[in-house]
Amino acid sequence: MNAMDTFVDSERDRILGQLMELLRIPSVSADPECADSCRRAAAWVRDHLDRIGCAPAELLGSDSHPVVCATGPVIPGAPTVLVYGHYDVQPPDPLTQWHTPPFEPTVRDGNLYARGATDDKGQFFALITACEAALAQGQSAVNLRFLIEGGEEVGGEVLLDLVRERPDLLDADIVVIADGPYYAPGWPCAEVAVRGICYAEVVARTLREDVHSGLYGGVAPNAHEALVGILHGLKDRRGRIRIPGLYATVRRPGRLEREGWSELPFDLQAFTTVEVGAGELVGDPRRTVHERLWALPTLDIHGITGGFTGDGIKTVIPAEARAKISLRLVADQRAEEVFAGLEARVRALTPPWARVSVEPLILSDPVAVDTSHPAFSRLDSAFREVVGRGIVFTRSGGSLPILEVLGSGGAAVLVAGIGLPDDHLHAPNERISINQFFDGIRVYARFFAGLGDHQEGEAS
Amino acid sequence: MNAMDTFVDSERDRILGQLMELLRIPSVSADPECADSCRRAAAWVRDHLDRIGCAPAELLGSDSHPVVCATGPVIPGAPTVLVYGHYDVQPPDPLTQWHTPPFEPTVRDGNLYARGATDDKGQFFALITACEAALAQGQSAVNLRFLIEGGEEVGGEVLLDLVRERPDLLDADIVVIADGPYYAPGWPCAEVAVRGICYAEVVARTLREDVHSGLYGGVAPNAHEALVGILHGLKDRRGRIRIPGLYATVRRPGRLEREGWSELPFDLQAFTTVEVGAGELVGDPRRTVHERLWALPTLDIHGITGGFTGDGIKTVIPAEARAKISLRLVADQRAEEVFAGLEARVRALTPPWARVSVEPLILSDPVAVDTSHPAFSRLDSAFREVVGRGIVFTRSGGSLPILEVLGSGGAAVLVAGIGLPDDHLHAPNERISINQFFDGIRVYARFFAGLGDHQEGEAS
Repeated sequence: MNAMDTFVDSERDRILGQLMELLRIPSVSADPECADSCRRAAAWVRDHLDRIGCAPAELLGSDSHPVVCATGPVIPGAPTVLVYGHYDVQPPDPLTQWHTPPFEPTVRDGNLYARGATDDKGQFFALITACEAALAQGQSAVNLRFLIEGGEEVGGEVLLDLVRERPDLLDADIVVIADGPYYAPGWPCAEVAVRGICYAEVVARTLREDVHSGLYGGVAPNAHEALVGILHGLKDRRGRIRIPGLYATVRRPGRLEREGWSELPFDLQAFTTVEVGAGELVGDPRRTVHERLWALPTLDIHGITGGFTGDGIKTVIPAEARAKISLRLVADQRAEEVFAGLEARVRALTPPWARVSVEPLILSDPVAVDTSHPAFSRLDSAFREVVGRGIVFTRSGGSLPILEVLGSGGAAVLVAGIGLPDDHLHAPNERISINQFFDGIRVYARFFAGLGDHQEGEAS
Repeated sequence: MNAMDTFVDSERDRILGQLMELLRIPSVSADPECADSCRRAAAWVRDHLDRIGCAPAELLGSDSHPVVCATGPVIPGAPTVLVYGHYDVQPPDPLTQWHTPPFEPTVRDGNLYARGATDDKGQFFALITACEAALAQGQSAVNLRFLIEGGEEVGGEVLLDLVRERPDLLDADIVVIADGPYYAPGWPCAEVAVRGICYAEVVARTLREDVHSGLYGGVAPNAHEALVGILHGLKDRRGRIRIPGLYATVRRPGRLEREGWSELPFDLQAFTTVEVGAGELVGDPRRTVHERLWALPTLDIHGITGGFTGDGIKTVIPAEARAKISLRLVADQRAEEVFAGLEARVRALTPPWARVSVEPLILSDPVAVDTSHPAFSRLDSAFREVVGRGIVFTRSGGSLPILEVLGSGGAAVLVAGIGLPDDHLHAPNERISINQFFDGIRVYARFFAGLGDHQEGEAS
């Protein structure tokens, strides 16, 4: 145990109390009524960075969902590490399925339950606390920068606009992101490719306004009928997406990468029933589960609205129906092209008695990371020392639109989360394991302390 | 102009003011939060019947959605007419599309706008006011009974249960219902067949709880995907319902009836764009619009929910998705059999990775009415005198589950509404034409005054 570990142990209750303070703020970026909470969360993070010596911390880019920017003490000649995170969280609904309220953090069985516990408040706060420990013990070997945004869950436009205006905010040798789980308990991983996303809303309209199904059923066109026909027509019976040309640009992972995946610990039965919570999995059975998750495009319907959605009975023919859908993209697909293909396919599926529009809500390209940078081996050593196993290179099914931007200045981007696969990300009863949280602090404190030597060694 | 007309003219403002009082009560039977308003609407109707001399009026069958029962002064030997109506209304959503609030009755351009204006508060109140006029002028020739229910829009169970226990409430020679429109402006009609209904909720479940589409998209089964596949599979490309055996029991209307329909004034273009508000109509083009509306079963999706339905963006794979759907039925279909066929078809369309249930919410059989009763010709005369044209026999696309029950004692059931086709029934900006309303009062006052003679004439 080193001095930083001792510091973290002695401050354990205070650290956890501060995280709970932050989790209590309902900073749901998708909800306009939470704008004030988003501001409060940003101010909280700014003040905390100030407190640990990363001053001046400031709020930039937006009044309602500002980006928290800060820099640590200057160490001339040392490498610069940019810590990225996001203080905004997913909406908590459906509220009835939470065992304890989403914004009243609660400890049960070694886990801390709250919306944002793992995505991403708990994880970026672990990174900041690792910085604090390294700084407090005089062991930080790097120049620290922070970009903690408040719009990741709604497309990240504020941060994207900000760094377009202020590219200097991205000046760094290394970018660190902790916003995801280990591959499995005891198996830390670095995500070296993330899927892109093409998120769109499909709106079908058939009537001036809703009409009575008794009086007009049989002749009045039903907006939901048009919509379900279109949505159903986007996949074939085997689950392949029916957008012409969609698979043409998919680069299949190399044999070595696929062989690596096949060595990962993987229990299909437990994955299906415990982690995913399904009776059986879907997708092309000729491809492995890892390929389906990491190397193939996917299409999901997130929600449908329109017509009568209340309790009880109403006999209405809906004039309008809406669906939110998204495709996850893999190299070398381009989000703009996929959107154009989706739009054309929807148009082809639209019956003559309906008008349908498709509006893009997020478009981001898939990203692949260069794993040859020495920071990867430094992080690997830190994990080995704390957790007993180094990092494995995985891909991620998720999308981080900011990733491409963060790496655009040539920095090595390390995406290595400290959560667990069953943290209920984006779902009711989101949580973080308290052990994982403190292990994460110890790992990253070593990483920040060790990088200087390593970089110098590399440079010499 | 007779004495009853003079009475109605002199009381015009008071009558309209009372209707507006009733329309101000938000008696939405589908909304549990409106139970108190339903009670208040019932009490209002009871007190009004008391006031016009139909006492004792009482509330029976339910505390929250009682049936208002009353009888008029006894005229020994005269026929008994039962007036049916319902004081409950459809939910007013979508609220944003109302030009004036649904429960603040507003007069514009000769129409009275409010939820319930035509369905059915305005119409049954016209019947009651016709009784009042006939009684006030000493011209009522019938024994009056009233059954005004508060659950028509949610399946009418309270009234069905009540008359099962108290069949004496249905002792009548004639039943009168005004709960629908003229066939066209200037064309009063009597509905001699009404469709049945099979209203059900389809629920698809695929996961224990919602999961993140980035982490699990490609393998996690999506409840909406199962649901849209099932809903799409319920009709073929031409709009025919794909439930095996569904059309086998459909009795095609006779040639005479179909020829009668072809003589009705009908402007396809105006019907499509102005009345229905569509770009084009759907349904089998080999059948006339009247056949599609009145003589063929239909299937509509009323609403879909599940997954993320809020503003903004959420990347979730929904664990559960729900749809409310209904079939309208025609003679000789049986609602129970149709439901069994629907359930079997849904099961056949369910993919192996989903569990789907179908729950029946309303089942009611189609009904045909015997048009040979002399009351039909009496009503015809009354319409001729007031409106200048007698009644045409039509069918209705709608369903009145209570109809079969009301006629079960052998009474002639007359369903002759006084609304207009563009009253925006069940939709935003529901209204009733004030001229239609007062014409309706004059027609039915004559009907109640004239029936006695007629019946005696028939009996002699």
